[in-house]
Amino acid sequence: MSIRAAIVGYGNLGRSVEENIKRQSDFELVGIFSRRAELDTDTPVFPVADIDSYADQVDVLFLCVGSATDIPEQATAFAANFTTVDTYDNHKHIPAHYAAMEEASFAAGNVAIVSTGWDPGLFSLNRTIASSLFPEGQQNTFWGKGVSQGHSDALRRIEGVTRAVQYTIPRDEAIESARSGNGQDITGHNAHLRQCWIVADPADHDRIENEIRTMPDYFVGYEVEVHFISEEEFEANHQGLPHGGHVITSGDLGGTHNAVEFTLNLESNPAFTAAVQVAYGRAAYRLHEAGQAGAFTVLEVPPYLLAPESLEELLARDV
Amino acid sequence: MSIRAAIVGYGNLGRSVEENIKRQSDFELVGIFSRRAELDTDTPVFPVADIDSYADQVDVLFLCVGSATDIPEQATAFAANFTTVDTYDNHKHIPAHYAAMEEASFAAGNVAIVSTGWDPGLFSLNRTIASSLFPEGQQNTFWGKGVSQGHSDALRRIEGVTRAVQYTIPRDEAIESARSGNGQDITGHNAHLRQCWIVADPADHDRIENEIRTMPDYFVGYEVEVHFISEEEFEANHQGLPHGGHVITSGDLGGTHNAVEFTLNLESNPAFTAAVQVAYGRAAYRLHEAGQAGAFTVLEVPPYLLAPESLEELLARDV
Repeated sequence: MSIRAAIVGYGNLGRSVEENIKRQSDFELVGIFSRRAELDTDTPVFPVADIDSYADQVDVLFLCVGSATDIPEQATAFAANFTTVDTYDNHKHIPAHYAAMEEASFAAGNVAIVSTGWDPGLFSLNRTIASSLFPEGQQNTFWGKGVSQGHSDALRRIEGVTRAVQYTIPRDEAIESARSGNGQDITGHNAHLRQCWIVADPADHDRIENEIRTMPDYFVGYEVEVHFISEEEFEANHQGLPHGGHVITSGDLGGTHNAVEFTLNLESNPAFTAAVQVAYGRAAYRLHEAGQAGAFTVLEVPPYLLAPESLEELLARDV
Repeated sequence: MSIRAAIVGYGNLGRSVEENIKRQSDFELVGIFSRRAELDTDTPVFPVADIDSYADQVDVLFLCVGSATDIPEQATAFAANFTTVDTYDNHKHIPAHYAAMEEASFAAGNVAIVSTGWDPGLFSLNRTIASSLFPEGQQNTFWGKGVSQGHSDALRRIEGVTRAVQYTIPRDEAIESARSGNGQDITGHNAHLRQCWIVADPADHDRIENEIRTMPDYFVGYEVEVHFISEEEFEANHQGLPHGGHVITSGDLGGTHNAVEFTLNLESNPAFTAAVQVAYGRAAYRLHEAGQAGAFTVLEVPPYLLAPESLEELLARDV
């Protein structure tokens, strides 16, 4: 029997979840709920205002609305009527979100898996597992190479900048230090390079570069590279949304140095985030089918529930 | 309240589990069960023949006996009286071991976590999670740099070899192919280099190298390096038991290439295997305390149960 899925929100993440679900043999996509009446898709589109009347037709609702305001304002209402999976990524407020979703989903007999994706999400899972292995471990997380939306926006606000993107890139020396167990002095500042690709009139290049290098909070204190390129090169090479990173954990065990590393190298941040969200959607469905209710983080979900195969198939193939 | 732990078997793994438990603040080590009356340790040692009379004094029994014959012959008897954690590593027979342990432990109200360690174990966990993310993914596992006990033994059987160790080393090109999604043609043969370090009389070097390179099954078909060194260099540099490897999974998501990699770089295979086993011992205790019974693989254990911290502490810190 297929898992009847629906999506609320149709930005980069919602579109990626739609594309992902269409490739899964154990899901069917009932529709997309949106505030907009028309979306550029052949999936059925329904007004989000009517969503509660679809509760009987949907097994798992993928929350693909924004973390900044939509999730805090809307997620508990969805959880009261649907089993949900979200990618809420405001780390500091996850405990509060988890508590709110627990209350809303448990009372309704629904499951709510919160803060899936990769950070929070798979990186959290790896940080927890790896740090459990070392009585006195050292753990570092590196992000990138990836587009920083906030820094790209800051570049575009500089006068004369017509196109801009900023990649955050972890420094090789910092990664090597972490691997060898010398990561205790690594900070966000000294671990990451900020690489800027800018389209602008050559007459403005010196001033723009100076404004970048002296911009507090965003660039001061970081190693910064500024590259001016043509509109054509920008179009050809800098339109993607790559991301990724490393979680590196190491420590002494019986007088020996041992290191665990989890790495993501992603050409598309939203496509990969969606893939994680869909896998946890499968888990949410199974937990609900097994009679569970309430909120779960990725730390609580038995990992075999993510796989399309049964536990028996996994054990026969893999363990 | 401490988790009262005991160990059965006192080889490399048992000693590493002992060392690890002594560094954990939430465990106490009740004793080691052995067939030998005297062990070189200040931990209490008891005859394994008497183990059943200690059932009330032990929360988790770490099975550190051999996978080849001890686990198949003895593990179910332990599971009938204790909550157990093992590192049974005969991949092909894990389903049968799991079924036998399920029967023995469930009937007695005990928990049995089977086949922990890193492969099977953490590598299995990563293979399952990562392959769940790609509708058509490509997955490769590489082992090493690590000592292959079987190949080292084969070298030592050659006439004139006084000391020998064989490291299996994954080839960089094969790892790069896997990362870029071109791992479909990678086999154990073309992915790994076999590096031999030998102590022998110089007069025998040519013959020994020839015997190595023509040894069927073990070396024919592999890239092989043979290094002859002095007894002193062997003592200084080749006494450890390093190991590790990579699980690399990648695939297309929405027209983009995305890769997940899990890497271990271990100076001591037994110390790290023990660290994983002890963390799953904590999970076994908690599952049992929560009223669960029966056999579990690493795929079934909610990951937060491995951590010394509570779920609330983990969420506040990390997710």
